[in-house]
Amino acid sequence: MQLVVILSFFAVVIAFAFAVYLYLWVKKQPSENKRIIEVSSLIQAGANTFMRREYGVLARFAGVAAVLIFLFLPEPLWNGSLLGQDGSLVRHFAMTAAYLAGTILSAIAGKIGILVATSANGRTAEGAKKDLKTAFLIGFRGGSVMGLAVVGFSLLGVMAVLLIAADATILLGFSFGASSLALFAKAGGGIFTKTADVAADLTGKVELGIPEDDPRNPAVIADNVGDNVGDVAGMGADLFDSNVAAMASALVMSQALDGGFGANTAMVFCYAALGLIASIIGIACARVGKKGNPTGALNASTYTTTAIFLVLTAIVTPLLPGFQWRIWGASAVGLIVGVVIGITTDYFTDDSKPIVQKVAHASRSGSAFTILSGVSYGFISALPAMVGIAVSALVAYMLCDPLGEGYALFGIAMAAVGMLSIVGMIISNDAYGPIVDNARGLAEMGGLGEETIRIADELDSAGNTVKAVTKGFSIGAAGLTVISLLGAYMSEVNEALSGMGKELLTGFDILDPTVFFGILIGAAIPAVFSAMLILGVDKNAQRMVGEIRRQFREIKGLKEGRKGVKPDYDTCIGIATSGALKELIPAGLVTIAATVLVGFIGGPSAIGGFLLGNIVSGLLLALFMSNAGGLWDNAKKYVEAGNEGGKGSDAHKAAVTGDTIGDPFKDTAGPSINTQITVVSLVASLLSGLFAAFSLFG
Amino acid sequence: MQLVVILSFFAVVIAFAFAVYLYLWVKKQPSENKRIIEVSSLIQAGANTFMRREYGVLARFAGVAAVLIFLFLPEPLWNGSLLGQDGSLVRHFAMTAAYLAGTILSAIAGKIGILVATSANGRTAEGAKKDLKTAFLIGFRGGSVMGLAVVGFSLLGVMAVLLIAADATILLGFSFGASSLALFAKAGGGIFTKTADVAADLTGKVELGIPEDDPRNPAVIADNVGDNVGDVAGMGADLFDSNVAAMASALVMSQALDGGFGANTAMVFCYAALGLIASIIGIACARVGKKGNPTGALNASTYTTTAIFLVLTAIVTPLLPGFQWRIWGASAVGLIVGVVIGITTDYFTDDSKPIVQKVAHASRSGSAFTILSGVSYGFISALPAMVGIAVSALVAYMLCDPLGEGYALFGIAMAAVGMLSIVGMIISNDAYGPIVDNARGLAEMGGLGEETIRIADELDSAGNTVKAVTKGFSIGAAGLTVISLLGAYMSEVNEALSGMGKELLTGFDILDPTVFFGILIGAAIPAVFSAMLILGVDKNAQRMVGEIRRQFREIKGLKEGRKGVKPDYDTCIGIATSGALKELIPAGLVTIAATVLVGFIGGPSAIGGFLLGNIVSGLLLALFMSNAGGLWDNAKKYVEAGNEGGKGSDAHKAAVTGDTIGDPFKDTAGPSINTQITVVSLVASLLSGLFAAFSLFG
Repeated sequence: MQLVVILSFFAVVIAFAFAVYLYLWVKKQPSENKRIIEVSSLIQAGANTFMRREYGVLARFAGVAAVLIFLFLPEPLWNGSLLGQDGSLVRHFAMTAAYLAGTILSAIAGKIGILVATSANGRTAEGAKKDLKTAFLIGFRGGSVMGLAVVGFSLLGVMAVLLIAADATILLGFSFGASSLALFAKAGGGIFTKTADVAADLTGKVELGIPEDDPRNPAVIADNVGDNVGDVAGMGADLFDSNVAAMASALVMSQALDGGFGANTAMVFCYAALGLIASIIGIACARVGKKGNPTGALNASTYTTTAIFLVLTAIVTPLLPGFQWRIWGASAVGLIVGVVIGITTDYFTDDSKPIVQKVAHASRSGSAFTILSGVSYGFISALPAMVGIAVSALVAYMLCDPLGEGYALFGIAMAAVGMLSIVGMIISNDAYGPIVDNARGLAEMGGLGEETIRIADELDSAGNTVKAVTKGFSIGAAGLTVISLLGAYMSEVNEALSGMGKELLTGFDILDPTVFFGILIGAAIPAVFSAMLILGVDKNAQRMVGEIRRQFREIKGLKEGRKGVKPDYDTCIGIATSGALKELIPAGLVTIAATVLVGFIGGPSAIGGFLLGNIVSGLLLALFMSNAGGLWDNAKKYVEAGNEGGKGSDAHKAAVTGDTIGDPFKDTAGPSINTQITVVSLVASLLSGLFAAFSLFG
Repeated sequence: MQLVVILSFFAVVIAFAFAVYLYLWVKKQPSENKRIIEVSSLIQAGANTFMRREYGVLARFAGVAAVLIFLFLPEPLWNGSLLGQDGSLVRHFAMTAAYLAGTILSAIAGKIGILVATSANGRTAEGAKKDLKTAFLIGFRGGSVMGLAVVGFSLLGVMAVLLIAADATILLGFSFGASSLALFAKAGGGIFTKTADVAADLTGKVELGIPEDDPRNPAVIADNVGDNVGDVAGMGADLFDSNVAAMASALVMSQALDGGFGANTAMVFCYAALGLIASIIGIACARVGKKGNPTGALNASTYTTTAIFLVLTAIVTPLLPGFQWRIWGASAVGLIVGVVIGITTDYFTDDSKPIVQKVAHASRSGSAFTILSGVSYGFISALPAMVGIAVSALVAYMLCDPLGEGYALFGIAMAAVGMLSIVGMIISNDAYGPIVDNARGLAEMGGLGEETIRIADELDSAGNTVKAVTKGFSIGAAGLTVISLLGAYMSEVNEALSGMGKELLTGFDILDPTVFFGILIGAAIPAVFSAMLILGVDKNAQRMVGEIRRQFREIKGLKEGRKGVKPDYDTCIGIATSGALKELIPAGLVTIAATVLVGFIGGPSAIGGFLLGNIVSGLLLALFMSNAGGLWDNAKKYVEAGNEGGKGSDAHKAAVTGDTIGDPFKDTAGPSINTQITVVSLVASLLSGLFAAFSLFG
């Protein structure tokens, strides 16, 4: 098995080396336009300020959590023999250290993303002055740096924790560190970015009729900062978390199957490493012709990476001892279903397909119809993905069940690992979006001319379309991961129960009233969680709308664009920052508190139900919100491209309203639900011992 | 037990007699205004045309379903010995007859509702010319006629089927008849009513700025017809269905516990009869002072009825042999939780409470904020109801579990029976709404003057507020009913499995991959179902908007209100009718087809999961949609009352957009989901034998 460890380590080193190379390549690209450099550094400064303040808040949260973890996990400190044979105190230290390592690596990954993205955005804009090909490469490679960093860190971190601690439960602590940070980073960044975006659109586009990214708009810099802190750093933390959780849940099971570091554990690492290598090849190959189609290029590299992964794993599986074809099948099914979910998502959100055009057409009758049709198609769009997740879980289970007890759930975990194997590629595609979005804004503000803006627009639109696909992917992977975490939860509970000499759980029967009780409450949590985030955006954006209106009213010459008159960008950045920091903690705490409450009331069975309800309604709402949001965004773009009356028409106004509603759906609430269900699953696993020891009705 | 049968029969007779008395009382009220009589008869004619055409379509559907039921249920016809001892052929006949009886009684109840409502609306308007007290009484008593008819028919029907067939499975056929008709009646009526409402509001209020119910608006009669066919007839069919399903599922279990007609079965009938008597008393006592508060009066009669039911059952329970206090406790918990759910719903939708006011305030920043805040509070509002249902199911289970095997689920069924015991009162309150809504329109069109319109407005607003409460009630009851139907499904499956000599199911474990598969797909169905209904409204309303715009453009003098110029009301009624009939079948069929498909793919376990997923996401979405819709409606009314800028302000426009979106949420999709989950549960129970005999993976 040393071979696999060496392979993984090798993949990580290559990934880091390639990331550094790409970063230097991006840095080498010309950056000459003074105005762009100036605005770019404003964005960088704004992003850094927010990140510093956010990490400050999160560090305090992590500190408190670390103390609680040290006291209570894996079991209350005073239960074990402190310095006994099982090394109780050492385990508590290890758990706490793993937790902190998870938070720190997650934070670093986000920070790197911001660093590159804010260097790449201006250069992409200037690249667009040259041609599409150059601009595409800068944007894509900028995104790839974060993709490689995230996957490299997650593989390295998981490997290090497992090799040092040799204890899968400690791995859950590491994963919880990554998740809890991701929850807040995603929520905080999501609130920040949509506060600015919504407020800028409503006052600028709708009220004053000035173009997007117009430098007169006081919220324009905040909007660009938001793209970075929400869509780059937040998304990076999110996928770092998903990737770690998928590996951790697979490793908890593989360790149980192997009784230590055996073939199954090796398989998890090997596949993750091969996925990273496939992503590196895919990233290296991605390019587009001078007049090429960027959406096609991005999707092509996803499919290439998928194919490379499938081939590489198919080559390695028969060569290594103990690697089983059935498990390969499970991971292949996961990956293929991920791609299929992406394609169906694309059908609902791509403006060359009928759905987006129907919603755009409905906008002619007023914004109510934009909303009603978007909500409806958003609901329908959840069906194929739900079926896909259901089928892949069923197939993975059936494939691996004959291998022996415990393999069925391991199969589901491997389907999740398979789906996330190409996450390096997914993140690259995803981070490309905000970079080119920023570039478009900078091209506008730097006065780079119509043609450059048109190229930037084309790149931006590709980013939007691809984003829908990658979101479908990450929600699907989160779904499979939490299903396998449900299995991990049961084995953790049973370990605790057997330690207490209590009767073991054999499953979670939905006719058991405590399970049912948990299901109903678990199902309500994602709704409440997303509502709190949306309300956060809503409240905050209203505040910012007030400020923008004030500036246009009070700063003479601003509206007319008189030379030398500048808006006060900083106040808007300040509003977004303090609002986001105020709102991010409650939503996260409510979900954790609900888990703890249900656990202490209904006991381990209720938590099983709670996790299920949470997963089911979380997936449904996440898919609905992400897809409806993407749909509205592209319907607006479709109208702006001159259809259904084009810019300035009533249909356009209605489509902009749709987009405004879709913004917090798709960029704040929708993707945060992913993290929310992972966090709840991990909290449940980690606290299983406490719930087993004490509960009111359980 | 004869005593109980006599009591039930007595209650039904009293209810019918009282209904006839109230109907005659309403008829006796003055109806003099020529214009009102004319418009009233237009509404009546429109409603009758739609009902005739709808019932025509449904009769064909029921005919096909009856043939299938005859061939396949309780088991395929060719399986049994046709004329053997077990009377196989007779059972098939009985099943088919029960099914048809269910559809016919449901249709009659709806028809009666329309008959009274369309007589009461004009009289209520003229009553409002006198005073609030008179108008309130006419509106409320008109609604009560349907309330009494629905409950009377459901109790009579269930009793007759059980006494004649002496077979609880046949009762499920009766219940399925009621449900399948309700599904289509609710969907068809819901699409009709909101097509007209949305189109009338958008063109009239938003585009032209003419008042609601202005006779110049070509859609105004269609809008009033819609109130009757959707909110009166559809709602009546819906609650007939819920009530029958709750009794049927309780009786399936009581028959199993009693081994025939014993104490538990008697208890179901006795409580239903006492609930009916309590409702009669409540209805007889309801009144309001000349300057009184109609909302208070309606709520007070609900609370009175609740108290009367609790007292009556508490008196009877110790007197009758075999009646158990624990079961009384379960039904009391159900009813009390129903009231609590109603009160929490009220908190989210009442315009004197902070939530509605916040949404109204958010409307100042534009319609996007109206929608975002409404969606958020709608999501949050689902939590208390979900917790309420979870707690009442848990408590009922725990209370009745000590009575012996099978009693726990019977307890949950009795909680549903308890919650629905006062359904006569609930329907009266609910049907009051559309009657006074119509009355308001008629007062406007009949030119009855400002003061009369103000009174009608006050009555209308009370109808809206109370509607929220009754909807919370009916969703809660549907939730408990389907939970107990889940139990009924398991006993039906096991009966079939034991007949085939196969291994029995002991439960539905969420870690079983077929169960999980079913859960995920089941959870997506209510989303798809409601999306199809909303799209139906959306498409249809766009068509009608086009027609209204055409009329205003082409009919000279219409916009200006020149004397003698009338719009073409009939074309609008025709559009709503044909659109609704076209859209109502597919949505219903999709849900039934999905159930059948999942059953034949995954087998009985997958269906168990499917039902659970369906229930959980169905409850969540139904609560979200109903409450968000009510919230927006009242936020608009709050603005119209002069707050946040009042009528004509930007906030008002935004609030109207919110209301337009909320309309199909709360009156088409939301309440139809109730029926959808009941239908799916019944289909599953009825087809359990087929799924047990054949499935791909089960």
